[in-house]
Amino acid sequence: MSADQYVVSNKQVICRNQFIGVPKESDMTITTSSITLKVPQGLKAIVVKNLYLSCDPYMRGVENSGNDRLFYAFTVDTPVVGYGVAKVVDSGSPDFQEGDLIWGPTKWQEYSLLENLDSLVKIQHKDVPLSYYNGVLGMPGHTAYVGFNEICSPKSGEYVFVSSAFGAIGQIAGQLAKLMGCYVVGSAGSKEKVDLLKNKLGFDEAFNYKEEHDLDATLKRYFPQGIDIYFENVGGKMLDAVLANMRVNGRIAVCGMISQYHLDQPEGIKNLVQLVYKRILMKGFRVYEYNHIYPKFLETMLAYVREGRIVYQEDVNDGIESGPAALVRLFSGENSGKGVIVVARE
Amino acid sequence: MSADQYVVSNKQVICRNQFIGVPKESDMTITTSSITLKVPQGLKAIVVKNLYLSCDPYMRGVENSGNDRLFYAFTVDTPVVGYGVAKVVDSGSPDFQEGDLIWGPTKWQEYSLLENLDSLVKIQHKDVPLSYYNGVLGMPGHTAYVGFNEICSPKSGEYVFVSSAFGAIGQIAGQLAKLMGCYVVGSAGSKEKVDLLKNKLGFDEAFNYKEEHDLDATLKRYFPQGIDIYFENVGGKMLDAVLANMRVNGRIAVCGMISQYHLDQPEGIKNLVQLVYKRILMKGFRVYEYNHIYPKFLETMLAYVREGRIVYQEDVNDGIESGPAALVRLFSGENSGKGVIVVARE
Repeated sequence: MSADQYVVSNKQVICRNQFIGVPKESDMTITTSSITLKVPQGLKAIVVKNLYLSCDPYMRGVENSGNDRLFYAFTVDTPVVGYGVAKVVDSGSPDFQEGDLIWGPTKWQEYSLLENLDSLVKIQHKDVPLSYYNGVLGMPGHTAYVGFNEICSPKSGEYVFVSSAFGAIGQIAGQLAKLMGCYVVGSAGSKEKVDLLKNKLGFDEAFNYKEEHDLDATLKRYFPQGIDIYFENVGGKMLDAVLANMRVNGRIAVCGMISQYHLDQPEGIKNLVQLVYKRILMKGFRVYEYNHIYPKFLETMLAYVREGRIVYQEDVNDGIESGPAALVRLFSGENSGKGVIVVARE
Repeated sequence: MSADQYVVSNKQVICRNQFIGVPKESDMTITTSSITLKVPQGLKAIVVKNLYLSCDPYMRGVENSGNDRLFYAFTVDTPVVGYGVAKVVDSGSPDFQEGDLIWGPTKWQEYSLLENLDSLVKIQHKDVPLSYYNGVLGMPGHTAYVGFNEICSPKSGEYVFVSSAFGAIGQIAGQLAKLMGCYVVGSAGSKEKVDLLKNKLGFDEAFNYKEEHDLDATLKRYFPQGIDIYFENVGGKMLDAVLANMRVNGRIAVCGMISQYHLDQPEGIKNLVQLVYKRILMKGFRVYEYNHIYPKFLETMLAYVREGRIVYQEDVNDGIESGPAALVRLFSGENSGKGVIVVARE
């Protein structure tokens, strides 16, 4: 067979331009390219068929003051980069076989040639929904586990607040806190999410931050004793209100500050002096610095998922064409749960 | 002898009213009371003659939002409370003998009856200046040691910035960093202090923050590679500039924020999102939670002091009457080094 016989069409979500502010659908376009489903001779790479793509807030890209971007999800005229679950179609590496399932950074297209094999995880346990490896069993779940367990050193009975609590990470942080025996309150942006947090995910309380006009008073209502642990996903006014309500020796895992990334001028945080008064720890972290504990995390989380002790809400979008709208909905808050784009079911 | 024969006059610095903003001399007054130099029968207490009183920024008192003050240096119509070095005149406890030297929370007066004996440390090593137990060998030294070693986990070769670097704590934090093999820059509020930091305390560089109009640019000049460790004493604009210049996995020991305590509305910190970008740790702390490492600290620091590897600059004020002015000068920045009030030399 000639190489041509392995050439197939390949639908892609291409980045047209860098975002200004939050992503718009017009920042992306769907094109059809082609790809050879064979690894070029001598290249230590794999070709995969993408099944489930992950849609995450970090993909907007955040920049630090030195202008070097942290995440490179978007490069103009190339496919969007994100995590995904995929099936190996051809392998140039002894570590991967045709038919293997993997998760890791892939691209928003039907098929991908992946060369950075160290960044991929082979999926061994297939009795759970495969899309979970984009979520509760993958990077977001691991992030929640690291932030809650490693950064916050939780104890049973502590008071825990999670913002963006119905998001890919917040859901898990809150449920881990419940399993630890903590009192857990979450904030989210709609009545529907608040109801699900309380009735399906087992949070003790939840509130819609869009309906609260004095977040300090809101937190005092839910935490009359104050907050021991804050799992921070949003930043800005919420962080300021939390700082005013932290307890002595409180801990804040700084996972993200989604309310701030798109602002030209971030909001000023006025209550940071509480770090002195209350001996508070705040710690930013990146999950890839904790890869060594992924196996321990996976074992723990697989058991919780199989036993139904942790449940996971996905916002499922069908077809790769649904990608741009799904990403935009993350930032408008119209999504509901972990963003997943189903490219193919196997 | 009757008890009356033990009654002596006792000069005191009395707090007239709570501070509004920074302390003024008129907030305090000198009065002469009397005291019996005998512990009342059956009371587990000691009577001490105060030798050296400590004059520290925390004494202004800082309040948290719940209105419960952290430090109780000032209660109207009673003597100012602060740390001091004192000699035992009479003891109702088997743990203390007449003639023992102690340091701990005492009061701004010539003689004190002290009942909280657990808070006192007996001075065993008298070959160093006794006033050092208010500073490099006492609470400020221990604070610097805890903040730098325990909170910041320093490594040789790291880039360290210390604000309020000529203060009671900053001096020691910077010198500990030099001994660790770090590159150390300090900020202070006068040319004299900057010169002493560089020429006497061995800082690599120092600058007068009052002469810098763009602190971000200043820090970029001194730290082109960025800052690994920030020993935070001031807060506000300096903290914001530091956050913009932190390196990945940087650490900030939040010892104090002296620029903020007296403000009705603290300054907003805009660069906190750097905690996400750079995985920064910030940690407030209180030295008394690290009392268990005081013996290790003391052994280390005594050796440094005896060998001349750490030097210590005191701002010496003669006579208890000099107390109010000395405290006011701490906040105007006219002081120079660790504030000490000499009540008696033995």
